[in-house]
Order: sequence, then structure tokens, then C-alpha cells
Amino acid sequence: MSLGQEPPQRLKSSLSYHGRKFRFEVSQLRLPNGAIGYWECIRHPGGALAVPVTAAGQLVLVRQYRFALCGRLLEFPAGTVEPDEAPLVTIQRELEEETGYHADRWQLLGKFPLAPGYSDEFIYAYLAQDLHKLEVPPTRDEDEDIEVVLLSPADLEKAILAGEAIDAKTICSFFLARPHLG
Amino acid sequence: MSLGQEPPQRLKSSLSYHGRKFRFEVSQLRLPNGAIGYWECIRHPGGALAVPVTAAGQLVLVRQYRFALCGRLLEFPAGTVEPDEAPLVTIQRELEEETGYHADRWQLLGKFPLAPGYSDEFIYAYLAQDLHKLEVPPTRDEDEDIEVVLLSPADLEKAILAGEAIDAKTICSFFLARPHLG
Repeated sequence: MSLGQEPPQRLKSSLSYHGRKFRFEVSQLRLPNGAIGYWECIRHPGGALAVPVTAAGQLVLVRQYRFALCGRLLEFPAGTVEPDEAPLVTIQRELEEETGYHADRWQLLGKFPLAPGYSDEFIYAYLAQDLHKLEVPPTRDEDEDIEVVLLSPADLEKAILAGEAIDAKTICSFFLARPHLG
Repeated sequence: MSLGQEPPQRLKSSLSYHGRKFRFEVSQLRLPNGAIGYWECIRHPGGALAVPVTAAGQLVLVRQYRFALCGRLLEFPAGTVEPDEAPLVTIQRELEEETGYHADRWQLLGKFPLAPGYSDEFIYAYLAQDLHKLEVPPTRDEDEDIEVVLLSPADLEKAILAGEAIDAKTICSFFLARPHLG
């Protein structure tokens, strides 16, 4: 059966915390197989990600500070979808904010669940082409600590297989994009 | 700088909830770039995953019910690391519980952060080979609702690129395993 067709039965809600980007819920549930228990869940509006490719075939990534990991990760540009926003609108804005590039050509590569054990977040991954540098890039969110990094697809693949600090959504989106890269 | 080297300064802790598999924290932080605010974070012991390959070259996956997504996902066998447990011990147990297969040969493929925007979880991905079916498989956790699925690497790649419901840790681990698959 496809996703969304088998909701658990919610017996009781014991905690609901509204965070800056998602809601954290704890509920007593009855699962389709009859199991009853308390489960924690992140209710997330979704993330939108770009695999930006320059005319020269370079990928545009960011090296971004992540407080949860006390360090910096190599990632594709991405952002949290705002309420009632289309993921494509989110990532068109985030690409400009995080990298200073604008893309004229967009193509949905796919969507995938990020952490299905405890979150309903989907990542919407787009191929972004026909890039040009903005003369005046928009200002970033003040909490963002980002450096733009250009890599060839071959060098990104080497970095992933060599175990460099690269996150799941970036590895997945690169996999989805490879058939479209030169 | 490498991960773990740049902790944020914790100014205040405003919520800490101990869930069944992770801790949920809300803290006021000062980031290395000076930004101050409240951030939510999942403190997770990590997940361990197997890419199990049969002698015939088939991949062993599970189709698993996920309450957060109200449906079933195709995933590699995986489980949450218990306190003070080595990830390899976790996945050796989970592989037997979820699939009824035992593997004699294990190799670490890599580790990657799953959702660095709000979680410190790493997935430890292992290649599992020299499989044999257990005559008496261990009993599963009662909340697990799982069906074993065998697929060729080519068919899994087709399913991923066709947009079947497959999660990030499974796509990433397949990418890391491909150089080792026939």
C-alpha cells in the first residue's frame, strides 16, 4: 500500500512542542499490527534541495556549520519549506541566499523520506541549471555560516566514497542527479 | 575544521525529553558566528545499517511500516544503536531479527549524518556477506511490521530512480555499496 494510506490510531497526545522549523509530538499510538505504545515524531513541512550545475559542469555546494554536529558539512544548498509554500519556490530562494547563484532551469529529480523512524520530512531534490551569479546576492539568515564550494561530479563522488563529512540528503540527491550529469 | 571541533556555546537549556530511542533538547545557543537563538535538537545514539548481499548477488531489504509516514517503505535492515553498544553489534542483531539471515562477513562502508539540521544521528553502513538463513530466526520487537524483499542491485537502482518510496539511509548506503557489488 502506498504512503499515507495506513495512519496509526492516535490514542493520546502527551506532548506537542512547536519549534522554529518543525513540531515535535509524543503520542500513544495503535499501529496497524496492533502494537500499542508511545512514539516520538517530528512533524516537518519538508526540505527542498538543489543540485546546481554550472555551464562548465561544476557542482555548487556549501560548507555549512551545523551546531548539532559541532562542525561543518559539505552539502547541496537546501532549506525548510515555509507553510503553504511550494518546495520549488523554497529552493529557488535558498539557492540565491546560500550561494549567490540564480538558476533559470529547474527539474524535479525526486523526493525521499529523510528519517522515517522519527520524522515525516521529505526532501524534494531539484536539478538547477542555466546558473548565473547575482550582482547583489540577497542577505542570508543571520544564523547561517556558509562557504560556497565548487566541485566536479567526479570529485564529489570521490569525497563521498572517501568518507568526507557529507550528509544523507546530499549523497542521495547526487545519486538521483548522476544520470543527468555529463 | 573537522566535526566535533566547534561546539556552540550553550546559554540555557529549556526542554529535554527522553524518548524511547533518542533525547529531544531545546537550548539557547550562541553559534561560532555569534548568532544567538533557541534551537531544537535530537540527540541520537546512531543507527546501524546492513547492505546484505546473498551468494547469488541479491540484496536483502525489508518493506517496513513507518507510522510517521502512515505507510510502508523499502529499506535496508537497520536499527538504533543501544547505549554503549558498538554499531556492528547492533546491526548483526538487527539483521537476524528483521530478515532471519545471519552474515559471516562484515565490512564498514562508511558513516554519514542523517539530518544535520536538527539531529546528531550518524548512520553506520556495513556490507554484509556470506549470508545464511537461520533455522530459528529470533523474535522481532512486537512493534515491527516487516516483510523481507530480495532485489538485484539493478532493480533497486531502477526503483530508486523511478521514485519508489525508499528512504535516504537506504539510497546513501546503496551508493556506498555499489563499488563492491558485482
